[in-house]
Amino acid sequence: MRAVDIIQKKKEGSVLSKEEISFLVKGFTQNQIPEYQMSAFLMACCFKPLSFKETLFLTESMLHSGKIFDFSDIPFRKIDKHSTGGVGDKTSLIIAPIVACYTVAIPMISGRGLGHTGGTLDKLESIPGFNVHLTSGEFIQNLKTLQLAMMGQTQEIAPADAKMYALRDVTATVECIPLIAASIMSKKLAEGIDGLVLDVKFGSGAFMQKLKDATELAKWLVRIGESSGKKTLALVTNMNQPLGNKIGNSLEIEESIEVLKGQGPKDLIELSLTLSGYMLLLGNACSSLKEGISLAQKAIASGKALQKFQAMVKNHGGDERVVESFKYLPSAKYTFKFLASKGGFVGGINARSIGKAASVLGCGRETVTDVIDPSVGFILHKKVGDKVQKNDILLTTCYNDEKKLAASMVELSQAFEITLKKPLSQPLIQKVIAKSNCQK
Amino acid sequence: MRAVDIIQKKKEGSVLSKEEISFLVKGFTQNQIPEYQMSAFLMACCFKPLSFKETLFLTESMLHSGKIFDFSDIPFRKIDKHSTGGVGDKTSLIIAPIVACYTVAIPMISGRGLGHTGGTLDKLESIPGFNVHLTSGEFIQNLKTLQLAMMGQTQEIAPADAKMYALRDVTATVECIPLIAASIMSKKLAEGIDGLVLDVKFGSGAFMQKLKDATELAKWLVRIGESSGKKTLALVTNMNQPLGNKIGNSLEIEESIEVLKGQGPKDLIELSLTLSGYMLLLGNACSSLKEGISLAQKAIASGKALQKFQAMVKNHGGDERVVESFKYLPSAKYTFKFLASKGGFVGGINARSIGKAASVLGCGRETVTDVIDPSVGFILHKKVGDKVQKNDILLTTCYNDEKKLAASMVELSQAFEITLKKPLSQPLIQKVIAKSNCQK
Repeated sequence: MRAVDIIQKKKEGSVLSKEEISFLVKGFTQNQIPEYQMSAFLMACCFKPLSFKETLFLTESMLHSGKIFDFSDIPFRKIDKHSTGGVGDKTSLIIAPIVACYTVAIPMISGRGLGHTGGTLDKLESIPGFNVHLTSGEFIQNLKTLQLAMMGQTQEIAPADAKMYALRDVTATVECIPLIAASIMSKKLAEGIDGLVLDVKFGSGAFMQKLKDATELAKWLVRIGESSGKKTLALVTNMNQPLGNKIGNSLEIEESIEVLKGQGPKDLIELSLTLSGYMLLLGNACSSLKEGISLAQKAIASGKALQKFQAMVKNHGGDERVVESFKYLPSAKYTFKFLASKGGFVGGINARSIGKAASVLGCGRETVTDVIDPSVGFILHKKVGDKVQKNDILLTTCYNDEKKLAASMVELSQAFEITLKKPLSQPLIQKVIAKSNCQK
Repeated sequence: MRAVDIIQKKKEGSVLSKEEISFLVKGFTQNQIPEYQMSAFLMACCFKPLSFKETLFLTESMLHSGKIFDFSDIPFRKIDKHSTGGVGDKTSLIIAPIVACYTVAIPMISGRGLGHTGGTLDKLESIPGFNVHLTSGEFIQNLKTLQLAMMGQTQEIAPADAKMYALRDVTATVECIPLIAASIMSKKLAEGIDGLVLDVKFGSGAFMQKLKDATELAKWLVRIGESSGKKTLALVTNMNQPLGNKIGNSLEIEESIEVLKGQGPKDLIELSLTLSGYMLLLGNACSSLKEGISLAQKAIASGKALQKFQAMVKNHGGDERVVESFKYLPSAKYTFKFLASKGGFVGGINARSIGKAASVLGCGRETVTDVIDPSVGFILHKKVGDKVQKNDILLTTCYNDEKKLAASMVELSQAFEITLKKPLSQPLIQKVIAKSNCQK
């Protein structure tokens, strides 16, 4: 078998066999197939997309390039959630402690973020003392004692994906649904889970701009998951405006704690409860979504979910007092109020602009070597559909550096749209993709 | 400027600027842009073909990556010929000595061959003592004294093309007309020529299988040449059966000498005279193709062309007695006669099968490190349209190694098609593409 012949085959639009895909992935991971052949193959895949079967073979090859966790001795169903990412998306921090209150364990392996705000790990690190660098042993121990473990992506998990993603990033081959699907699922299937709930976002603040593309990706993800013997379900959710009101690393920890205390903004609560409900359902902790949501509400009302969160923080060496007062979280020195220039309704809040502004302010990274400022960020006072009067506060910027404030204002000035008419309200959760409706 | 953005642009089908293409080619040649980005770009070009303007920019960037010869002190028009290659194609060896008899100089930089039989250099090297490794100085000296110089491709000429072609070869990105055109023309324009005659072949023994594709390539080549200020003309010629009767390195030297002596097969004579005629026309040595052909015939009839050939051999240290007797050329130890299995007409001689059989026999290389056997090859006794009776000799194989003979017979057995009806005769020269008809 020669790599060049496999590339040629894909270029011509022929269907590759399991052996051919495995040959490519294995050879590439072991440095026997050079990057220039893999990048030509990936570009060919952008024009002649992999079939579902080929994508499944690719996922499996990538999955088997590394370690697969075995949690069979943990007497709970293992369920994870994955989000394709968006601005203000902090649901992982909320739903993991909720679901862990029942007979479900959550082995959550998260990434760091590039652009926008940080990833889940970056947010957790804003808690003083919080150590995200667990060994596999500590990860398993947490999972046993707390039913909840958080950890960063490691070299051991699907190394083929890490190598391939790095290549896609610099060869303009990221935007390709089968490749995206294989990349996500190879990592998630390595977690040794029984089920997975996916939050596939669309809109200005999401990787996928269009509902149609997000739905397509959601279907691929569910099909791959189900074909791999995992119960899989995907929500397709709106990311045209930020999720919740707080954006920034420690600010998102604050808002997560608020939700776990029964407070917090409506949209974030809705999505967190629904995701939790589905995770409980896949975890056999209930028999309907409605019941799952009810269980999630009880975990919040009883304070048990907050206790789980606190125990998790303690287990990671973090300052558990953050649950009692936000004064133990880093906060920015200054605030700046961004006012409405006219009255009317908030017609739109461009999540992409808010995300860029947050990144410029110091919430996220432009490159992997950038250092995040955990304390800075934005607090939204108005959301889409809200009535505003001239000079109402739309947003508060929490900042430390005036130059960064100024730069972020350039981005922010584009973000708010004030309209005369109240905009039509759009549902946050647009679709639910399950085994029954994941076929094309 | 970032390579990834340029790749993305091409992937989306946008038109690249001169600066962007130059940035890519320069960066790649100087090892600043890695191979994996260039191969992704090349694959994108296969799906979103470069426009003519982009192809011109690419050609220029590749041309200027190396040395460009300056022959302005040589008081003749400099004209070269380039063939896209085929089985039994030895016209370079014939037309260069013919044209050099008039007020035209031929600076011919040739390649070695992969597959089929060898390239022009390999054929010349079958002449005992012939040294193809000239310095630039010797090359220019030959051009001045003989009006004829032969030399191999060097690292100095269009190094970007050499690097890019090596990459295309292993990433399934060879078959792409704009890339092929830029590759050919960047090397030819580096030769410091005033005009160029191209022989673009189509058919089973050619790189381009279809007349349509060969015509398209011919148009691109002529457009690039003319846009670069060179008189350029292309013949589109039939390579469904081998050209001439002899295939193999020293056998092709023999047949070239035969033609220069006024003998040789009809098809080879026709093509050689036509190519010579056009070269003389572009070289202002005559005012019509008819006159050019007549001049070429005179150069043969007078023996002057043969003398030029002999002088060239002598200049390269080769045994000039090969012109007097083929006994001074290497010849194979054994011969094997391949007979017609039934009577009828030769309906087809698959040039690709003959080429493969020749390669297996030792005429060509499968990989760059293979060693060529200059003495082996085939002599065709029947061509397409000829009448045959059962057990007539179709072909004689000249061989040294019985195993290689056997392996080549496997390929050969597929090559001849015997039909009941005489096949329709196809013109050898199908089209002439000039400035006037090179636009799409």
